[in-house]
Amino acid sequence: MDFGIISKVIGILLLIESAFMLPSVGISLYYGEADTVPFLVSIAITAFFGFIGCLFKPKNAAVRYREGFMIVGLGWILASVFGALPFLFAGTFPSFIDALFESVSGFTTTGGTVLSDVESLPHGILFWRSLTHWLGGMGILVITLSVLPAMGLSTIQIYRAESPGPSPDKLAPKIGQTAKLLYIVYLIITVIQVIALKIAGMPLFDSITHTFGTVGTGGFSIKNASIGAYENPVYEWIIIIFMFLAAINFSLYYDALRGNFRSLLKDSEFRFYSFVVITSIILIAVDVYGFFHNNLGEAIRHSAFQVSSLISTTGYASVNYDLWPEFSKMILFVLMFFGGCAGSTAGGIKQIRILLIFKVIKRELYKLIHPRAVISIRLGDKTVSEGIIQSIMGFFMLYILIFAGVSLLLMAQGMDIVSSTSAVVAALSNVGPGFNIVGPAMNYGGLSNLAKILLTACMLLGRLEIYTLLVLLMPSFWKD
Amino acid sequence: MDFGIISKVIGILLLIESAFMLPSVGISLYYGEADTVPFLVSIAITAFFGFIGCLFKPKNAAVRYREGFMIVGLGWILASVFGALPFLFAGTFPSFIDALFESVSGFTTTGGTVLSDVESLPHGILFWRSLTHWLGGMGILVITLSVLPAMGLSTIQIYRAESPGPSPDKLAPKIGQTAKLLYIVYLIITVIQVIALKIAGMPLFDSITHTFGTVGTGGFSIKNASIGAYENPVYEWIIIIFMFLAAINFSLYYDALRGNFRSLLKDSEFRFYSFVVITSIILIAVDVYGFFHNNLGEAIRHSAFQVSSLISTTGYASVNYDLWPEFSKMILFVLMFFGGCAGSTAGGIKQIRILLIFKVIKRELYKLIHPRAVISIRLGDKTVSEGIIQSIMGFFMLYILIFAGVSLLLMAQGMDIVSSTSAVVAALSNVGPGFNIVGPAMNYGGLSNLAKILLTACMLLGRLEIYTLLVLLMPSFWKD
Repeated sequence: MDFGIISKVIGILLLIESAFMLPSVGISLYYGEADTVPFLVSIAITAFFGFIGCLFKPKNAAVRYREGFMIVGLGWILASVFGALPFLFAGTFPSFIDALFESVSGFTTTGGTVLSDVESLPHGILFWRSLTHWLGGMGILVITLSVLPAMGLSTIQIYRAESPGPSPDKLAPKIGQTAKLLYIVYLIITVIQVIALKIAGMPLFDSITHTFGTVGTGGFSIKNASIGAYENPVYEWIIIIFMFLAAINFSLYYDALRGNFRSLLKDSEFRFYSFVVITSIILIAVDVYGFFHNNLGEAIRHSAFQVSSLISTTGYASVNYDLWPEFSKMILFVLMFFGGCAGSTAGGIKQIRILLIFKVIKRELYKLIHPRAVISIRLGDKTVSEGIIQSIMGFFMLYILIFAGVSLLLMAQGMDIVSSTSAVVAALSNVGPGFNIVGPAMNYGGLSNLAKILLTACMLLGRLEIYTLLVLLMPSFWKD
Repeated sequence: MDFGIISKVIGILLLIESAFMLPSVGISLYYGEADTVPFLVSIAITAFFGFIGCLFKPKNAAVRYREGFMIVGLGWILASVFGALPFLFAGTFPSFIDALFESVSGFTTTGGTVLSDVESLPHGILFWRSLTHWLGGMGILVITLSVLPAMGLSTIQIYRAESPGPSPDKLAPKIGQTAKLLYIVYLIITVIQVIALKIAGMPLFDSITHTFGTVGTGGFSIKNASIGAYENPVYEWIIIIFMFLAAINFSLYYDALRGNFRSLLKDSEFRFYSFVVITSIILIAVDVYGFFHNNLGEAIRHSAFQVSSLISTTGYASVNYDLWPEFSKMILFVLMFFGGCAGSTAGGIKQIRILLIFKVIKRELYKLIHPRAVISIRLGDKTVSEGIIQSIMGFFMLYILIFAGVSLLLMAQGMDIVSSTSAVVAALSNVGPGFNIVGPAMNYGGLSNLAKILLTACMLLGRLEIYTLLVLLMPSFWKD
């Protein structure tokens, strides 16, 4: 293990993080609030450790396989730990566990909060809180679309099986260039949403923070009632559209920028994702029609908002959907498992895996009638290898296993079944709010410290597609 | 499609069924109750249709692949329909849907009831109700251990991948002989349990009916409070042991009868099953320790009873475990998915599939560190083919899909999440009681007709391992 390169890369990461804390200093000075010093101290500490990390000499010039895992896993954890410092120093949270929960929730783009009153926070803290989503979203894009495929990791690069346009490794010969292209797409989408919200009448600060939460599919709001606080249908429609967009494979945007819109429409995952979104919106709109006093427009808007929010694993709310009928809640619950498309900022199992699981079921049924038929699973005009099918199955099983296991641990502490299971999937899929005591109108503040730690671990596990983190815990990873 | 052989085999099935209704006539005469005529009429109708079926001339001498599916699927459905006649004529149920629910619940060895007061039923009906479990259990043994393997069906004969002793097709060269051996094992276990319960002090009628419910892993009781009504720990321990035994692969008993006890201890599925049972008993006993006023003996006994009952998919209750803490209930809920061993009378996903799923997850983790390693999954000293692994994965996914889909349909009718999900898994895994409004102290009588029909379909789907029934609905099954 080349610890030199690990500490150097993470050192750079921390230096970048400290630089991203600077805007909050300006904001706190502008609003004349008390969080200037906490930010300055956090910047100093983060930059100091970043600098120390950079001092180590790498043994090799390039990041190899096993070092890559360490950098991704440790990088996310350390970015969250140092990102929690402003919260801690500003006295926003009573304990480090709470501050860490919030920071991990931010960087993993989960958006579940332990705070009951976010509106009382200073603007610098609010900005940093939302910025962690934006940074986390960018981080996951770079890692899943450029770093990991370049490392030859199959479980996360499943989208490559199709990807009708240039596959990520063709996007640019070097990771650095791929990453740069992603930054540009990500920035363009961010800027468009901020402008759209501003034109619609939302204050600039609110527009920026909510855009960070949307494009990163995070979900932290600066309002206690989330987007519902504005009661403005135009804001809601803008955010619906951008939540939907943020959960699409970003390599398709690159194609679209080059004028190749057909690759989007031909993409199996995008088509399946759109089908699931539209079907869910219709089913829920019908179910909540009475709930909104037979106002079809409202039923559709709130259905579309919650569907886009939970399938993209954002977690914003336009209403307290925990009061909706069980049928609608169950659909939303299932969508939380599904998540968005691979190669997006969304979490969850991912649409492409769900689509392939359906294809596997269909194949098994077909094989029952034609026992000797050898059928390969196709995605668009390409064949998916059995190795990829195996990893997808393994991933799904592991997801369900962790979901059931952690849910049991929460129940062992006396949490009810709906709260505990929804809290776990909300953390694992990086959604944020669950149902019942962790519902959209509630928060995670009342949970035990053990529950918070378990959910923090789930957020990281989910964000790093389980394997990336779990592999670090395996003895054979450390051997030889 | 050779409809001649289908109607002939089903005709014989119905003639056998009508013969098994005869004891109830004797019982109703002995107790001088009003159900004599209903049984005589049911026998006449069932025998008449059985006779008609036998009149058809088969085109071929042997049952082939596709006809086999039709016989198994249609056979179970028609046996249930005719088995519902005594309930209908005796006026036990207000509607045919209720009578059919109860009959399907009996023949599929589910044991969920629509009756709130079983103690008011005449003895002949009670005997027939319990006998359907025993017949259903025997039917599933014969089908999964002799008919389907002989037809070359891989999904259901997964246990063959190991089966250290003689594999079923070696047990006897012909299906008839294999079936005969199974009848003998099944009869021996039945007789031993009846004698054990009788010696312990249970009345003979109660011993016989509860034995039918145990060895068939059914769960119909003749008491409203199930086994809890007796408040006799000895009865409970006897039933715990026989529920545990009934969920073990019956081909292992054949080996044991021939003196080969080692094949039982060497069997991977049996070892995994025992591990799951013991772990669950300990976890729940600790959790409910306070519930039983710190009486460890009671905590262990009731934990063992409920674990054995739900993992074997029997569904008897020694207490109302719906009042237990969430942690214990969640473990029981998971055990309902697992079910017993393949080749037993138990339902559920089956222990061997769960074991292999764990092995697949383990392999995926290993492959992440050693990406080029080719690892085959082993069970005991044999390698499991990738085809079998694929079917197991497909089966699991389909199970979860049907579970989620039907749960949603129940919720759409306003059922709460715990009741609907537990009702569906209780039906699919042939357990019987679920939680909340379908808990062990409740019944299915209050559900809507649509809910009852859906759950009836789930019971049949689960009992026939989904594929066997689903394949009949596929257009390509009927082509050519």
